[in-house]
Amino acid sequence: MTDVFTHPWLSGLFGDVAAQAIWTPGASLSRMIAFEAAWSRASGQTGAVDRDMAERAARAIEGWTPDEAALRQGTGRDGLPVPEFVKGLKQAAGDAADAVHVGATSQDVMDSALAMALRDTLALLDERIFALEAALRGLADRTGDARIMGRTRMQAALPIMAAHRSGVWAQPFARHRDRLAELRPRVACVQVGGPVGDRRNLAPGMVGVVAEQLGLAEALCWHAARDGVVEFGGLAAMIAGSCGKIGADVCLMAQQGVDEARVAGGGGSSAMPHKQNPIAAETLVTLARYASAQAGALGGAMVHEQERSGAAWTLEWMVLPPLAMSAARALGLCIELVEGLEIIDSQA
Amino acid sequence: MTDVFTHPWLSGLFGDVAAQAIWTPGASLSRMIAFEAAWSRASGQTGAVDRDMAERAARAIEGWTPDEAALRQGTGRDGLPVPEFVKGLKQAAGDAADAVHVGATSQDVMDSALAMALRDTLALLDERIFALEAALRGLADRTGDARIMGRTRMQAALPIMAAHRSGVWAQPFARHRDRLAELRPRVACVQVGGPVGDRRNLAPGMVGVVAEQLGLAEALCWHAARDGVVEFGGLAAMIAGSCGKIGADVCLMAQQGVDEARVAGGGGSSAMPHKQNPIAAETLVTLARYASAQAGALGGAMVHEQERSGAAWTLEWMVLPPLAMSAARALGLCIELVEGLEIIDSQA
Amino acid sequence: MTDVFTHPWLSGLFGDVAAQAIWTPGASLSRMIAFEAAWSRASGQTGAVDRDMAERAARAIEGWTPDEAALRQGTGRDGLPVPEFVKGLKQAAGDAADAVHVGATSQDVMDSALAMALRDTLALLDERIFALEAALRGLADRTGDARIMGRTRMQAALPIMAAHRSGVWAQPFARHRDRLAELRPRVACVQVGGPVGDRRNLAPGMVGVVAEQLGLAEALCWHAARDGVVEFGGLAAMIAGSCGKIGADVCLMAQQGVDEARVAGGGGSSAMPHKQNPIAAETLVTLARYASAQAGALGGAMVHEQERSGAAWTLEWMVLPPLAMSAARALGLCIELVEGLEIIDSQA
Amino acid sequence: MTDVFTHPWLSGLFGDVAAQAIWTPGASLSRMIAFEAAWSRASGQTGAVDRDMAERAARAIEGWTPDEAALRQGTGRDGLPVPEFVKGLKQAAGDAADAVHVGATSQDVMDSALAMALRDTLALLDERIFALEAALRGLADRTGDARIMGRTRMQAALPIMAAHRSGVWAQPFARHRDRLAELRPRVACVQVGGPVGDRRNLAPGMVGVVAEQLGLAEALCWHAARDGVVEFGGLAAMIAGSCGKIGADVCLMAQQGVDEARVAGGGGSSAMPHKQNPIAAETLVTLARYASAQAGALGGAMVHEQERSGAAWTLEWMVLPPLAMSAARALGLCIELVEGLEIIDSQA
Repeated sequence: MTDVFTHPWLSGLFGDVAAQAIWTPGASLSRMIAFEAAWSRASGQTGAVDRDMAERAARAIEGWTPDEAALRQGTGRDGLPVPEFVKGLKQAAGDAADAVHVGATSQDVMDSALAMALRDTLALLDERIFALEAALRGLADRTGDARIMGRTRMQAALPIMAAHRSGVWAQPFARHRDRLAELRPRVACVQVGGPVGDRRNLAPGMVGVVAEQLGLAEALCWHAARDGVVEFGGLAAMIAGSCGKIGADVCLMAQQGVDEARVAGGGGSSAMPHKQNPIAAETLVTLARYASAQAGALGGAMVHEQERSGAAWTLEWMVLPPLAMSAARALGLCIELVEGLEIIDSQA
Repeated sequence: MTDVFTHPWLSGLFGDVAAQAIWTPGASLSRMIAFEAAWSRASGQTGAVDRDMAERAARAIEGWTPDEAALRQGTGRDGLPVPEFVKGLKQAAGDAADAVHVGATSQDVMDSALAMALRDTLALLDERIFALEAALRGLADRTGDARIMGRTRMQAALPIMAAHRSGVWAQPFARHRDRLAELRPRVACVQVGGPVGDRRNLAPGMVGVVAEQLGLAEALCWHAARDGVVEFGGLAAMIAGSCGKIGADVCLMAQQGVDEARVAGGGGSSAMPHKQNPIAAETLVTLARYASAQAGALGGAMVHEQERSGAAWTLEWMVLPPLAMSAARALGLCIELVEGLEIIDSQA
Repeated sequence: MTDVFTHPWLSGLFGDVAAQAIWTPGASLSRMIAFEAAWSRASGQTGAVDRDMAERAARAIEGWTPDEAALRQGTGRDGLPVPEFVKGLKQAAGDAADAVHVGATSQDVMDSALAMALRDTLALLDERIFALEAALRGLADRTGDARIMGRTRMQAALPIMAAHRSGVWAQPFARHRDRLAELRPRVACVQVGGPVGDRRNLAPGMVGVVAEQLGLAEALCWHAARDGVVEFGGLAAMIAGSCGKIGADVCLMAQQGVDEARVAGGGGSSAMPHKQNPIAAETLVTLARYASAQAGALGGAMVHEQERSGAAWTLEWMVLPPLAMSAARALGLCIELVEGLEIIDSQA
Repeated sequence: MTDVFTHPWLSGLFGDVAAQAIWTPGASLSRMIAFEAAWSRASGQTGAVDRDMAERAARAIEGWTPDEAALRQGTGRDGLPVPEFVKGLKQAAGDAADAVHVGATSQDVMDSALAMALRDTLALLDERIFALEAALRGLADRTGDARIMGRTRMQAALPIMAAHRSGVWAQPFARHRDRLAELRPRVACVQVGGPVGDRRNLAPGMVGVVAEQLGLAEALCWHAARDGVVEFGGLAAMIAGSCGKIGADVCLMAQQGVDEARVAGGGGSSAMPHKQNPIAAETLVTLARYASAQAGALGGAMVHEQERSGAAWTLEWMVLPPLAMSAARALGLCIELVEGLEIIDSQA
């Protein structure tokens, strides 16, 4: 029960197929493999190693099958999977082993792979926001001139157009799209530093060649400057938060006595089969509260000692994937909720 | 990569076999089954249903094999697995279906199962703390009269006995044992409320009989009073924090130039095979920072609306298991660290 | 606007006279003075310094008036007020200066003073909880057999006795009183360590004598073991949380269309003079959410490096007083809310 | 001791004159007054009220002196100061009272005033970042070719140029300046909504006229869409975090045995006058950890119910000003630290 996103049955509520496809361990390993293959080829292109050997190494890397037990044991011992991973790649490369991981370090592999995951997550979130905006426009069309009670401090104030409220729901998502676009070049960046981040012994042009092969931007070595990662977490939490505001409002509108909303597919109760519960709306509130706390936790990763902090870096591994999953799932659930939502004119 | 505790290779660093055995989905389901079997038997004993039918129901429940796909689908629909779970039990019980889940509600099942998980986690943490205290006594014996530099504000102050520092490390764990003992009766309690928590139509004696069968204390219905759960989270975070203090100190002591500690089995680097990294010590800092943020998040579950808040309750499912895992893993890692630790006299 | 608790007008909502009296800078300084006077007298009693000189020093300390500008400047320079404070005391003591602060260190002063503040806060919270429990009993008496709609997942489920809901409100406070009692001996403890915490050169009996004079328990040096402080923060947040649950329920009950509660003295609106807003109930939700986040932040203080971490210790100064204020104010507001609350039978 | 930023002596460490000038209650009130004066004038210009009367009202508003006790009492009663504030303004306006606050609501006043405070804070942070970047360039010049030990996982790895490390320190601040520029148009926006946010009865052109007078951008009504505010908090925390990374590194570099940094004006100890403590560096770590937790707390304000949530809005009042103060103070302290920092070649 330790991970609701991939749990055998809780994933029915929290799981998100598309986000999970990005963050699954296998996908993570594929990105690490892509980095190492690109790195070997770039080492050949820039003349750091023999070009043919580099190509043979890259192909061996791409064809490599991990030994999960060894990776697990290695991670326990080394604090990260890369030393064991590289050992496996070198074995696979045989006489091309000298063209594997030359001058790279663990963080180059893992953070470049992370940058790819974040880039793909940004694309997914962007696409989902568009879909949610469309769903909100659809809701506005269905709602028409319906009026509901405007409420401030949870008290009836004055009647408003229902479309005013759903317009306020939509408002932040346009800004979130801007934020995603602004963030992308700050975070979808290759990480290349070498052992202590100063790119010693790096063949000229390596960074650009590797970045291009991986579809990432070139960048300064960011091994100890984690602001892009933390900004991602903050934005993920804001997206979940904007969905949570919709969820909270729908929960309140669906109350008996208020009766301003009907949700499709409300959930059942084991004791009262007649009840229809606004499951998606409540879960949006949960995801919003969860995500904002995780964003606060992720901020701790800014205090990253010296050239590489095992402690701060590892914290990202714990907090970042659930943040990505929360934002993606929130958007997915919110689209479902809005598409199935009927707002009822209470002032007719 | 969404859950470091059960991840195929990151679990080599974060996984804890004993804690995982408590929190695995299968174990969680077994506790739910235990509750339903006990509930059926108690329904027979108290005369709520026919005693034979109750026993037949209980046996069918105990022999039931879940359909995970159906549970997942049901959870997505109902916001929790119980309606689908009960449906499965009733089918399994056949003509004894009327003796299944009579007068109980979803929260009774899930929260009583949670109470069992927390009870078992408390026992595990208690046992681990004893082992850590023993390890710390062993360290003190090995350290003897060795002296190190006392440091305040990260500056050399005056030499101290190394045993003074490790004595301060040990100090809070005696208090943590007291806290565990004080918490146990507040959290290892059966949850019985029925649909809206008022125990309507409950046969006299049910609560006591069910509690006894499950090895839990009898208690008032706590469906909307989550302080025990939140207190557990706070204590788990404090335990992880006390281990994190040890980890931080060891990281600082193991620095070149300080040279007051040597750790066994330090981790390797993919770029610098000569390096020995204090992996366990760093991970303790990570777990401490992670856990305290999660405890803050869990506090949000206190604001639990009305008779049952889907939003607040669901938040617990996201935050509580990682907190339990963090505390358990922190203790396990800390025992390893302390057992392998050698403190070096820097003032000789 | 940086501090709502003492702000010239926001304090009308957040301020708490009794809690403020404990935590005001002047009170804090008085406790530091009390420590130093007790320390000088104890130094005389235990023979560390001449007894007459000690008494003269103590009297000079008790009569000392601080130069706030010098303390501020000293704090900016030294990171804490104690060096400048002790300098002032020594000047005041004149030829008894050698009986001031002998063998003590900054943390001894500030943490012993903190322990007194926490002790007094615990007493205040305890007293408030009793008053709240009385108010809740009064509410139950006024409510009698009134029935309201039981609601789960914010949906009408089945009617319940209103007294059932308010009974669930009361439930955690009895446990909070137990927690306060259990926490007291862990936190109302004198801090005596000397420069690096090992009590070097300390006259036998000093700790006990000082503790007794200050009304604190004797204890091991806890300069780097902050679990008592963090436990206090967690409990403060839990208390605020239990009040927040009441606030959330009252907000929901006071909605038009639900109409199950009337609050006394609801707040006005600048645009709609007819509106009566459940200010206290909403503020309880705010305080609960605020306090749980602060408790999470305070947990970071557990990772306290070496003999004294400036960074971790200073974090307590930022987070702990607002936590104390939040819990006290939440209880105060909650008592007012409950005393003015009328529950309306919606099922008659 | 509840607010370190304005505390009589702790402000010596935490206080920031320039940031305090923006966030002081008086400044906050001045902005509210500026809004009401602009609102009255705009009401005249757009023909909503008589132009002369509007001007008389505006002048009376600008000349008004608040009764703090009344504001405090009003805030306690109404949950915010605006009703009492407007009452005072109307009294001051005498026969022009009908030109005061016409069609505006409390949130329009307070949130427009907040937008001005945030705009001014953004300008301050931007200016400070420039100064810090200049200080870092100065440090690089002073440091020249000095080399220090590159450290990963707190272990010596390979020597690096000291300028590499300080270059990594500088890196995020260029991005923070971009973030400030991107955020400004999302948050320095007038709030105009009227009682329920739908701008009913608003004279055409009002929003633009008011915005222009206040130096804010025109915007949709954002009363219940708090993403700009939450984004501000996240950015403030990131800025504090980037300073905290510098602080952490300096603490580590200043250790005896490492000896790679000397800080100017280190703080004293009450027990060991010879010690020089890296106060500023430690405080930067504290501010970073504090701010990231507050940013997490602020995220809770995203779940803002209906047209105005008293609970979520009030949470901002508690968390936002300390976040602004933390970021400003962190930059100020960091400039001081860097300007006084000497990096020592440890590899010569």
